[in-house]
Amino acid sequence: METKQEIQKSMMQAVTTVKETNPMAGSITNTVTINFVANAQLAVGGSAAMVYLPDEAAFLAEAGGATYINVGTIFPIYSETLPSVAKILHEKQKPWVLDPVAVGIGSLRTSLLQQFKPFKPAIIRGNASEIIALAGLWELDGGATESKVRGVDSTDEVFAAQHAAIALANWTGGAVAVSGETDLITDGTQVAISKGGSHFMEKITGAGCSLGGVAAVYATATTPFIAALTATAVYNLAGKRAGQLVDGPGSFQQQFLDELYKATAEEIANNPFEMQEVLV
Amino acid sequence: METKQEIQKSMMQAVTTVKETNPMAGSITNTVTINFVANAQLAVGGSAAMVYLPDEAAFLAEAGGATYINVGTIFPIYSETLPSVAKILHEKQKPWVLDPVAVGIGSLRTSLLQQFKPFKPAIIRGNASEIIALAGLWELDGGATESKVRGVDSTDEVFAAQHAAIALANWTGGAVAVSGETDLITDGTQVAISKGGSHFMEKITGAGCSLGGVAAVYATATTPFIAALTATAVYNLAGKRAGQLVDGPGSFQQQFLDELYKATAEEIANNPFEMQEVLV
Amino acid sequence: METKQEIQKSMMQAVTTVKETNPMAGSITNTVTINFVANAQLAVGGSAAMVYLPDEAAFLAEAGGATYINVGTIFPIYSETLPSVAKILHEKQKPWVLDPVAVGIGSLRTSLLQQFKPFKPAIIRGNASEIIALAGLWELDGGATESKVRGVDSTDEVFAAQHAAIALANWTGGAVAVSGETDLITDGTQVAISKGGSHFMEKITGAGCSLGGVAAVYATATTPFIAALTATAVYNLAGKRAGQLVDGPGSFQQQFLDELYKATAEEIANNPFEMQEVLV
Repeated sequence: METKQEIQKSMMQAVTTVKETNPMAGSITNTVTINFVANAQLAVGGSAAMVYLPDEAAFLAEAGGATYINVGTIFPIYSETLPSVAKILHEKQKPWVLDPVAVGIGSLRTSLLQQFKPFKPAIIRGNASEIIALAGLWELDGGATESKVRGVDSTDEVFAAQHAAIALANWTGGAVAVSGETDLITDGTQVAISKGGSHFMEKITGAGCSLGGVAAVYATATTPFIAALTATAVYNLAGKRAGQLVDGPGSFQQQFLDELYKATAEEIANNPFEMQEVLV
Repeated sequence: METKQEIQKSMMQAVTTVKETNPMAGSITNTVTINFVANAQLAVGGSAAMVYLPDEAAFLAEAGGATYINVGTIFPIYSETLPSVAKILHEKQKPWVLDPVAVGIGSLRTSLLQQFKPFKPAIIRGNASEIIALAGLWELDGGATESKVRGVDSTDEVFAAQHAAIALANWTGGAVAVSGETDLITDGTQVAISKGGSHFMEKITGAGCSLGGVAAVYATATTPFIAALTATAVYNLAGKRAGQLVDGPGSFQQQFLDELYKATAEEIANNPFEMQEVLV
Repeated sequence: METKQEIQKSMMQAVTTVKETNPMAGSITNTVTINFVANAQLAVGGSAAMVYLPDEAAFLAEAGGATYINVGTIFPIYSETLPSVAKILHEKQKPWVLDPVAVGIGSLRTSLLQQFKPFKPAIIRGNASEIIALAGLWELDGGATESKVRGVDSTDEVFAAQHAAIALANWTGGAVAVSGETDLITDGTQVAISKGGSHFMEKITGAGCSLGGVAAVYATATTPFIAALTATAVYNLAGKRAGQLVDGPGSFQQQFLDELYKATAEEIANNPFEMQEVLV
């Protein structure tokens, strides 16, 4: 297992590479937070492009360094777009981030999430309820067959999803990030606990979605585990800083984007986190 | 008729219940202001979820305490989604808020709004032109058969819509909120005139839509009339406070969300309003 | 050729007319920046309305003073909506603004942009890569048949697109605005170079889209060339002012909208620009 110092060095390299190369990460994401996702991706140094149609998604999948797929608001065309783009991403071995928003709600959403299983997303990002429900849908260890997902909110604690997160990471060979008051990131062999953030992150929409989009940006430049940890770290850092400067969720949104933009590689790598080995 | 004090007590209870229970109000709403609607719902203490597909809308309708339906930007799938979800909401006696944006424009919009009539929304929220046009479309007293709606702007004064608003409220058995420089809320037997706001509310998009979304949040906790009045009161309060602190519409948007978040139950109930009895 | 003073006088008249008459410019635009487009149109004094369906687009095309069409995120229904509305706009001689976002990506986008050629948009607004690619798609002088468009970012310098911009303007008889670090606006016989802006404009999404939407607002009140130049001027002015007041992209967004709102006709007309005659 890498030392914490080695991990921090990799995080700094990922942040620096993104700021220097402005990598493009295309997205198929929900209409609620699509603007916030794009602005967050730009704020950390990436480039954003959003589409809905199958051939456009295929183009971005091949042209971009990574792709972000968020099933928050589904359109009928997604029945064509999402399975085909996930297949391409898997075949071309391009990293992609899956945000299984509201898994368990609706037949198309369920069908799409089931179809994603063989196409192994490099990073899966969700709240505890979503991670547990996805592991259940994929019939993996630690999954609940009955979703506790309520709309888009989590009803489970982060650590309750650790077992499911490890099982998902072992299946994909990538990383899983469970978002909550503290955040858990695992690649199946090690677990990082990242700290920080602000209570305002639950008072705005899109904190989770945009974290997934930023993870896709970092995934163009490093491993899934480092990408997920780096994205979570900059979110916890920017959230903490922004939360100390504002007294309402409206101001928080814009201050948070400012802090994402201002955070340096060293500051991000030094945001508090703990490493644990997964005991087999 | 309730005394003003009794009404204020009910408003305080609604605000407190929402802040304590974080109720979920699902939305099918337009893509222009969908983010602002969600953030406003979160700011007052509610929980938001947005969908487009029929079975997902049905799920949210049954899982949520209330539902917000805004026809601002219509997708083809709405021909399936909206009538079926409105029927479910009516059958399950779940309160729902209708925002008949740009009523009169387009055949699907007109057909959907006509189909809504038997499903009696608990709250109808619109500007004067939209309220008059909807009453006309539903062939109720006080309605104009020819819409004066221009895109999404109102060309009628609030009080010109009082007759139509009362007729709509008598039909639905719920409440109607007419938004304008002063706001008129009625349940068909009483009329509340709520004051406050800011000229900046016409210089941003989504002030009206998000008011409808917030009314849905309060409708999970109180009667349609109190929900519509409470939502209008917090909007007039937050708008007035935000407008005094900023000098442009960009700053106004975020300051307004901050003020929505900061407003207390007592402050909201004490925002200026007058009660009038409807003379039959 | 008009003198610079005559041009500035026309710019001031356009700004004043818009602030006094609140003209409506409907849009069919992408879901990423649709809210920012609407708020920018409102900030300069216009009125906004967004739709997706063919008959609603037809209604707005005829009811509005101008229309904004942005192909950033395409829905399947656009195959019906966009060619029919462009045809109506051309037949009714209503000015419309085309934003050929990501031209070259996807078959429907390519087909739609090809179909637009005979319907001659009054203003074409894009970055250098998009302008060059559109001229190529329309088989005009100065166009590249192979697009260098990468997602939604430009890989060409503004001046590299001058030849293509002039060819497009000569075809449409309208104006073309090439956005970049400096901006180039031409009607085919004269070229304006507009200066200002901020590096933050590349760190937010929607600076270009909303410029197109604002150009449509001004196109309701003046010639395509003056409308494109005026919109570019207020963007360069507001961008410069906002950029001097903030230290991050989140704050920049709202400050930019404030500055759009505060800019006076005289200040906009006096934002630095240079005129050049096109030598034939």
